[in-house]
Amino acid sequence: MAGAIQPIVDQIVAAMATETERGAVATYIPGLARVSTDHFGMAIVTADGETALGGDAEIPFSIQSISKVFALTMALGKVGDQLWNRVGREPSGNAFNSIVQLEAEQGIPRNPFINAGAIVVADVNLSGHMPREAIGELIRFIRFLADDETIIVDDAIARGEQETGFRNIALANYMRAFGNIHHPVELVTGVYFHQCAIAMNCLQLAHAGRFLMLDGQHPGGGRVVSARRARRINALMLTCGQYDASGDFAFRVGIPAKSGVGGGILAIVPGIASIAVWSPGLNGAGNSRLGSLALERLAQATGWSVFSARA
Amino acid sequence: MAGAIQPIVDQIVAAMATETERGAVATYIPGLARVSTDHFGMAIVTADGETALGGDAEIPFSIQSISKVFALTMALGKVGDQLWNRVGREPSGNAFNSIVQLEAEQGIPRNPFINAGAIVVADVNLSGHMPREAIGELIRFIRFLADDETIIVDDAIARGEQETGFRNIALANYMRAFGNIHHPVELVTGVYFHQCAIAMNCLQLAHAGRFLMLDGQHPGGGRVVSARRARRINALMLTCGQYDASGDFAFRVGIPAKSGVGGGILAIVPGIASIAVWSPGLNGAGNSRLGSLALERLAQATGWSVFSARA
Amino acid sequence: MAGAIQPIVDQIVAAMATETERGAVATYIPGLARVSTDHFGMAIVTADGETALGGDAEIPFSIQSISKVFALTMALGKVGDQLWNRVGREPSGNAFNSIVQLEAEQGIPRNPFINAGAIVVADVNLSGHMPREAIGELIRFIRFLADDETIIVDDAIARGEQETGFRNIALANYMRAFGNIHHPVELVTGVYFHQCAIAMNCLQLAHAGRFLMLDGQHPGGGRVVSARRARRINALMLTCGQYDASGDFAFRVGIPAKSGVGGGILAIVPGIASIAVWSPGLNGAGNSRLGSLALERLAQATGWSVFSARA
Amino acid sequence: MAGAIQPIVDQIVAAMATETERGAVATYIPGLARVSTDHFGMAIVTADGETALGGDAEIPFSIQSISKVFALTMALGKVGDQLWNRVGREPSGNAFNSIVQLEAEQGIPRNPFINAGAIVVADVNLSGHMPREAIGELIRFIRFLADDETIIVDDAIARGEQETGFRNIALANYMRAFGNIHHPVELVTGVYFHQCAIAMNCLQLAHAGRFLMLDGQHPGGGRVVSARRARRINALMLTCGQYDASGDFAFRVGIPAKSGVGGGILAIVPGIASIAVWSPGLNGAGNSRLGSLALERLAQATGWSVFSARA
Repeated sequence: MAGAIQPIVDQIVAAMATETERGAVATYIPGLARVSTDHFGMAIVTADGETALGGDAEIPFSIQSISKVFALTMALGKVGDQLWNRVGREPSGNAFNSIVQLEAEQGIPRNPFINAGAIVVADVNLSGHMPREAIGELIRFIRFLADDETIIVDDAIARGEQETGFRNIALANYMRAFGNIHHPVELVTGVYFHQCAIAMNCLQLAHAGRFLMLDGQHPGGGRVVSARRARRINALMLTCGQYDASGDFAFRVGIPAKSGVGGGILAIVPGIASIAVWSPGLNGAGNSRLGSLALERLAQATGWSVFSARA
Repeated sequence: MAGAIQPIVDQIVAAMATETERGAVATYIPGLARVSTDHFGMAIVTADGETALGGDAEIPFSIQSISKVFALTMALGKVGDQLWNRVGREPSGNAFNSIVQLEAEQGIPRNPFINAGAIVVADVNLSGHMPREAIGELIRFIRFLADDETIIVDDAIARGEQETGFRNIALANYMRAFGNIHHPVELVTGVYFHQCAIAMNCLQLAHAGRFLMLDGQHPGGGRVVSARRARRINALMLTCGQYDASGDFAFRVGIPAKSGVGGGILAIVPGIASIAVWSPGLNGAGNSRLGSLALERLAQATGWSVFSARA
Repeated sequence: MAGAIQPIVDQIVAAMATETERGAVATYIPGLARVSTDHFGMAIVTADGETALGGDAEIPFSIQSISKVFALTMALGKVGDQLWNRVGREPSGNAFNSIVQLEAEQGIPRNPFINAGAIVVADVNLSGHMPREAIGELIRFIRFLADDETIIVDDAIARGEQETGFRNIALANYMRAFGNIHHPVELVTGVYFHQCAIAMNCLQLAHAGRFLMLDGQHPGGGRVVSARRARRINALMLTCGQYDASGDFAFRVGIPAKSGVGGGILAIVPGIASIAVWSPGLNGAGNSRLGSLALERLAQATGWSVFSARA
Repeated sequence: MAGAIQPIVDQIVAAMATETERGAVATYIPGLARVSTDHFGMAIVTADGETALGGDAEIPFSIQSISKVFALTMALGKVGDQLWNRVGREPSGNAFNSIVQLEAEQGIPRNPFINAGAIVVADVNLSGHMPREAIGELIRFIRFLADDETIIVDDAIARGEQETGFRNIALANYMRAFGNIHHPVELVTGVYFHQCAIAMNCLQLAHAGRFLMLDGQHPGGGRVVSARRARRINALMLTCGQYDASGDFAFRVGIPAKSGVGGGILAIVPGIASIAVWSPGLNGAGNSRLGSLALERLAQATGWSVFSARA
C-alpha cells in the first residue's frame, strides 16, 4: 500500500477545510479557549514505514486526555496487573468527570481513561517521588516512544488546569476517602494537571503511538510492552477511549482511539497504522468534531477497522 | 492453518473438564435450572472452511440473549439505520435488565443487547404482524444463516420466560409510556420470550455466525448484510455483548462476542473464525464461566484478537 | 375562633381569582385535560364544628393521589404494621412515578404516597378479592369518613387511567419481579386506577379528613384508627405528601397535606382543622399551583402550623 | 404539667441503662472512637420553665451535625432567604455525605443539614473573614442562645476532622467547580470542621434550642429570629434532621430533631419543650440508637407530637 495513504489524507484535509460546523473549543482555561477552530491536522505512520501528513500536522496542541494512554502504559510498567485492583476496565456509561459511580463502587473508578481512573494512575506514577520527577519520567517516556526530544509541558496550560481543576481535586479527595489515593491529593493532582498539559503535534503523537500498532514493539527495536499488554491497551481505547461516546465511535469508525479535550485523537489500527488527528472544536460528547469525522472518512476510504475481515 | 484448530479445541475441552469452579445455572425458569453444569461444548468454523468440534458441541441449549444478534440483524434489514432513533449504541454500565437509565434517557435503551434494547428490536420485528409470524420469520432467518432446517423454539422454555418475565414486561410497559414501543406489550414480549427460547447447538450457532466473520457474506454465496453493517454488528458485540463485563471481556479476550444466560457464547474473529461455546454455569456477570475461560484460552493459543497486529 | 374562618376563606378565594399564573392541567387523560384552570374551591371544617366554604367548593373533581391517604388507612386496618415490611416511610427524593429507587432497593417503594407504594397498598387492599369488591370497600370507607353516600368513581377517568397507565403497569410488574406484588398485575392496577378516579368535592374531602384532625376519631363518634396511627399518617403526609416538593411545602406551609394530580389537596391541622382546596392547574412539581398558594396564605392568616408554639 | 417531666426522664434513664444493644460509636476520628457507649444523658427544658435532667446530662460531647442548626440560623441572619438560592429544602433520599445528587443538580445541595448543604452554610458564615473569626462568631452565638459562656471547640476533635475529612473536602471542591462555594476550600472546610467539633452537654444544648420552642424568642427576652423563621427551621429539622431516616423518625416520634454523629440529638416540641439526649452508640442510619429510642419513649409517655390534636 506504499504511497497510497498520502492522497487519502490530502482528500480528508480538503474536505475538512469546507466543513462549517466545527464544534466549540473547551473554554475552562484560557490556553484552550483561545485556540482557533480553523485548525485541522492529520498524521499517519504505517507499519510499512510510510508517513503521511496533512494540514496543521506539525502545530503543537495540548494532548490532554490522550496523555492517559502513555501514563497508563507507564503505570503498568511500574505495578503490572496490580493496577487493576484499583481501577476497573469497563466503560462508565457516564460523563468523563462523573463522580456518581465512585460512590456506589467504593472509590474504584470504572476505567483508567475517565478522569478518576487517570488520577489513580497518576498516584501510581508518583510512587513516592515529587510531581516534578514523575512528570519528568513521563515526558522522557513519551520522547522515547516518539523519538523526539523536543516534547515539553506547556506550563501556562498546566497552571490553568490547576486553577480551575476543582472537580478533579474533588475526585481525588473522594477516592482518598476510600483509601484509593495514596499520596497527598495536591501532589497527585499536580502530576495529573501537568500530564494533561503536555504539548505535541500530530506527527509526534502518531510516532508515539507506533508501539501500540506493533504489538508492543518500538519500531527502533526493542519492546515497550508485551504483545498482550499492547492488545489490552488497544482494547481499553476501543471500549473507553471516547468518553461516553466510545460505543458510537466503535460502531462508526471501528478503530481503537483516545481523544483529548484539546481536540486531538490518537487512533491505532493494529498491524497497520498509528494515526493522529487534531481539530480543537469539540462535539457534544467532548471529542474533536472534525477529528472524529476525519477518522470515520479514513476508515471508509481505507477499509481499516478491527471489525472487518480484511480479506 | 488447515487442521490446526482441532488440537487446540481438544486441549481446551480437556482443560475445561478438570475445572471444578463451573459457575451456577440460571434458576429463574425450570428449563434452565435443571441443566447440568457438567456440559461443555465448542465449535469453530473458520473462513478457510475448517470445522472443529469438541465436547457437547452437538447438544442443543437455549440461546437466550444470543438471539439478540440475529434479531438485530433482521430488524436492521427491516428499518435500516432508523432503528438507531429508538436504541442507542453505548455500553450501559449497568446490569442487563436495569431500568434506571431508561428513566433518565426517556425510554431510549442504551444498546440493542440489553433487554430493553432487545425488546425495542422485537417491536420492530413484529412490524404489524402477530408474534407467531415474527418468530417464524426469525427462525427461518437463523435456519438460512446456519444452513440447518432443524432449528426450533423450545416451547417449555418460552412458557417459562412468559410466566416469570415480569421485569421484561415492566421494561416494555415503561418504554411504551415513552412511546418507544408501538405494539401492544403482550405481543412484543411474546416475540421476545420466544426468541430467547430458540434452541441451538454449538455447531449450528457457529454456522449461523459465519456471515459476521465474512464481512456480511453468506458462505453459500450471496450477501446477508453489507460489509459495513457486519462490522458494526461486530463492534456492538465487542462493546456491549457481555452485559456489564463487556469491557473486561474485550480486555482479556479481545474478540467480539455475545453471551446468553443459557450458557452459550457466539464469538466472531473477523476474517478468520466463527466460534460457539456452551457451558451452562454462569459467572457473577451472567456470562458462561467456562465459556469465557475457553475463549480466553483459545485467544491465547491462536493469537486471535481484533487488537493484535497479526503480523 | 367560631366564625373566624369564613372571612379568611373569602379573602383567599378573592385573591386566587386575580391570579393569572394558574399552572397547567394534567393532560395524560382527556377527563383531566379538559378541566378549566379557572376553578378554585376551598372547604374548611374545624374541630370546633365550624364549616367554611369558598369558590367551587361543591364541584366534584378527580381526587387522584389523595385517595392514597384513604387506601393506606384501609390497608393498615387490614394488615397493620406488617405493611411496613413492603413499603418504606422515607421521602423518595425523586419524582412520584420514578422507578429508579425500586431497582436499588429491591422492589420496596420508599413510601406509600409515591405511585409504587400506592400500588403495593392496592395489592394489600385487594386481599384475594376482585378489583370491583376492593374498590367497593374503599368507596364505602370514604363515604363513612365523609358522612356522604353520594361519592362515586368517575368511570371515564378510570378508563383513561387504564389506557395510558403504562408506567404504573411497569412499576407493578417490576415489583412483582421482586415478589412485592402478590396478585396478578392487571387486578392490582385495576384497583389503583379506579381509586385514582374517585370524584369528590372540597366539602366531601374536608369531611373525609376529619378523623386525621381528631387523633383518629370519627366526629360522629367511634374511632377510625388509633391516635398513634392518625399521628403517623399525618407524619407521612408531611414528609411525603407533596411528591418531591414535600420538604418545601413543609417549610413554607408547615401543615401535613396530600396532593393529587387532579388539582386537589387535603390538609390536616391536628386538633384544629381539616382543609380541602382544589384548582386544576399544577406547578412544576405536580401539585396544584393555586391550592399550594392558598394553603400558604391560610397558614399565614391563621398561624396554623405544626411547627409553631401556638402560644 | 409542672414537675411532671422529671419522673418521666428518670424512667427513661433507668430503661436505657438496661438496654444491651447500644449501637456503635463513630470510629473515623480517635476523639469519637474512644467514647464509651455506656453513656446516656437527657435534658429537657420546658416552655413553663421546668428543667429535668437525667444520666450524663452534664458531660460534654461533640455536637457534630447538631451545629448545623445553629450555623443555619446564623447564615439566615446574614443573607436571609437568599440562602435558598444556594441550598434546597428537600430531603435528600440519600446518605448524609452523598455526592450523587450534587452532580445531577449542578452543585446545589438538597438541604442545609446534609454535609454539602452545611458546607455552603459555612461558606456563607465565613463572609470574607478568616475561619477563626467565623467560628468565634458562631461560638458566641451559641453561648448567647444557651446562656453559657463556657461552651468551646474541642481542638483535638477539630484536628481529627481535618485529617480525615477527604470526603467533605471533595464535596466542597465539587461545589466550587459549580461556583457554589465562594471562598477557598481550605477556609470553608476549616470553619465546617471546627463547628462540628463544638463540645456541649445535654443541658447546654437544650438551653440553646429554647428559641426554636418559643417561636424564635430568647427566653431571656428579645427575639433571635422571626416566628416564621423559627417554624421553618423546625420544619427542616423534621423533614431532614435525621439524615435518610428522617421520614421514619417523623413517623415514629413526630418531633423535629437534629442528630449528630457524636450521639447527640436536639429535639424541639414547639410551644412545649426543648430536649437534648446523648448516647454515643449509633444505629445504621448514623443516629444515636438510645437517643432515638429515648425520644420515642418520651413522645409516648407525654403525648408530645407535632402531629397530634393535643386535645
